[in-house]
Amino acid sequence: MTRLHVPIGLRWNDLDAYGHVNNAAMLTLLEESRISVFWGGDGFGVEGLSDAAFGLGGDTITLIARQEVEYLAPIPYLREPLDVQLWIGRLGGASIEVCYEVCSPVGVDPVVVFARAASTIVLVDTVSQKPRRMTDAEREAWSAFVDAPIVFAKRS
Amino acid sequence: MTRLHVPIGLRWNDLDAYGHVNNAAMLTLLEESRISVFWGGDGFGVEGLSDAAFGLGGDTITLIARQEVEYLAPIPYLREPLDVQLWIGRLGGASIEVCYEVCSPVGVDPVVVFARAASTIVLVDTVSQKPRRMTDAEREAWSAFVDAPIVFAKRS
Amino acid sequence: MTRLHVPIGLRWNDLDAYGHVNNAAMLTLLEESRISVFWGGDGFGVEGLSDAAFGLGGDTITLIARQEVEYLAPIPYLREPLDVQLWIGRLGGASIEVCYEVCSPVGVDPVVVFARAASTIVLVDTVSQKPRRMTDAEREAWSAFVDAPIVFAKRS
Amino acid sequence: MTRLHVPIGLRWNDLDAYGHVNNAAMLTLLEESRISVFWGGDGFGVEGLSDAAFGLGGDTITLIARQEVEYLAPIPYLREPLDVQLWIGRLGGASIEVCYEVCSPVGVDPVVVFARAASTIVLVDTVSQKPRRMTDAEREAWSAFVDAPIVFAKRS
Repeated sequence: MTRLHVPIGLRWNDLDAYGHVNNAAMLTLLEESRISVFWGGDGFGVEGLSDAAFGLGGDTITLIARQEVEYLAPIPYLREPLDVQLWIGRLGGASIEVCYEVCSPVGVDPVVVFARAASTIVLVDTVSQKPRRMTDAEREAWSAFVDAPIVFAKRS
Repeated sequence: MTRLHVPIGLRWNDLDAYGHVNNAAMLTLLEESRISVFWGGDGFGVEGLSDAAFGLGGDTITLIARQEVEYLAPIPYLREPLDVQLWIGRLGGASIEVCYEVCSPVGVDPVVVFARAASTIVLVDTVSQKPRRMTDAEREAWSAFVDAPIVFAKRS
Repeated sequence: MTRLHVPIGLRWNDLDAYGHVNNAAMLTLLEESRISVFWGGDGFGVEGLSDAAFGLGGDTITLIARQEVEYLAPIPYLREPLDVQLWIGRLGGASIEVCYEVCSPVGVDPVVVFARAASTIVLVDTVSQKPRRMTDAEREAWSAFVDAPIVFAKRS
Repeated sequence: MTRLHVPIGLRWNDLDAYGHVNNAAMLTLLEESRISVFWGGDGFGVEGLSDAAFGLGGDTITLIARQEVEYLAPIPYLREPLDVQLWIGRLGGASIEVCYEVCSPVGVDPVVVFARAASTIVLVDTVSQKPRRMTDAEREAWSAFVDAPIVFAKRS
């Protein structure tokens, strides 16, 4: 059990004129899923993964260094939240590779995997604005969420 | 000379609370640069590259199969348009790999490369909603814009 | 009891570089609240108010004819959903005035009213693309949700 | 001659699944037109209207106190920029009412007025975060751009 399941609701405005979720809106959905599990405090976040110090006002901000997305099927408008499955693919020195499968709402059978994606996020000190190394405590806590990274099939 | 230079203006709303262009907004900027050169008609698009039949109402739509972005430097708010440099990295059977370097506005010295990215777009027949093969005429016209694809340095 | 309480979650990306919910994002929050109660089907919407035929694929679409918003306090990033309070201010021949108070999350004391707003939405027949009159059944059902319209204090 | 004509380009992503510019995106278009004329510095803004000190990093920020929009016709996807016509409807003590007509691209005949709108913006001191009075110099400079405010026909 290393995958987290994060319910992420669509907004009508995520659709573009083709009637599907726009390719850029996909990154907003991924962002919401990351925030949901990594930004702690006041009952939010996932125990062991989140840290109250993340996010606005904390002492660490996270920047995105790279992202890769395979769009497998267009996402139509859905009232039920998507089931974004999220895990850590790799722990680097100052970075984390977050992996995702963006799936149809819980209960839909068979499951549709709309997209597979990975984001490399870098821990940045709020004051110095420079990357900072992961602490031992963070590495230990986060390793509980590590699983095999996504192998992107369509890389050219 | 195969790179096209597309001026893409930021919107204030592309910034997020960190004061930089949001990671998802980057894909919207890339989308605008693609539309600018690939969607023809009435003086728009780039001769040889664009086809008036693309876009809404045409007989071919283009879907995004994959995207990869390396974010090299945060983009602050800029009044002058970014210089998005765009070329074709590969021509497949029914797909095109579009490559980009998102650069500082023309005239800024030294040039800052804010991001490097690639999108694989698939030609889809509007009626059948299925991928269609590139025609010989398209392949010939588009090959004038082919250059070496981006080698992503930070792939894990 | 005519006000409906619709929980509407913020997204991080709704904030702009001032660190508050952007003025345009406010209209997206209102849109989500309308959809939540007016678009029915499969357990969604509010009984008596929603109609499964609304929304994409239905036989009636709703267009916005006018909107008015008073921004009373900037909305910071909030993890708990806003409490958007929604009611009908007026029933016209082919239109509905929807009124809103956008309030702090349920349980926050004292309640902060971040914005007051009204949207005039017009019922449009999907096929003819023309306004259609409200049916007697709709008028009767919807009148249960009518309350005094907002009096905008700051109109010049 | 008090109306300013601001060319504002659409983005594909401004459209929603109905194939028209989304009602919330309209406010982003208005925002871009305001920034274009009010935020000065380095050759930007409109002489007499803009002040280099506005915007991010300046000593005055502008908050939106209210907005009102009449949507007169849906905006389809357009390659040519909209002609947003902008003027000042009223000068208050610490506030400005900005009026707009969002028109079809220059050269389209007959002109289509897609929307009429007004925004009340308040001058806020960056340090104290409180409204500040308009200076005499500002009032004098800005009065050159004052014309009759919009009379909203559809107010209920």
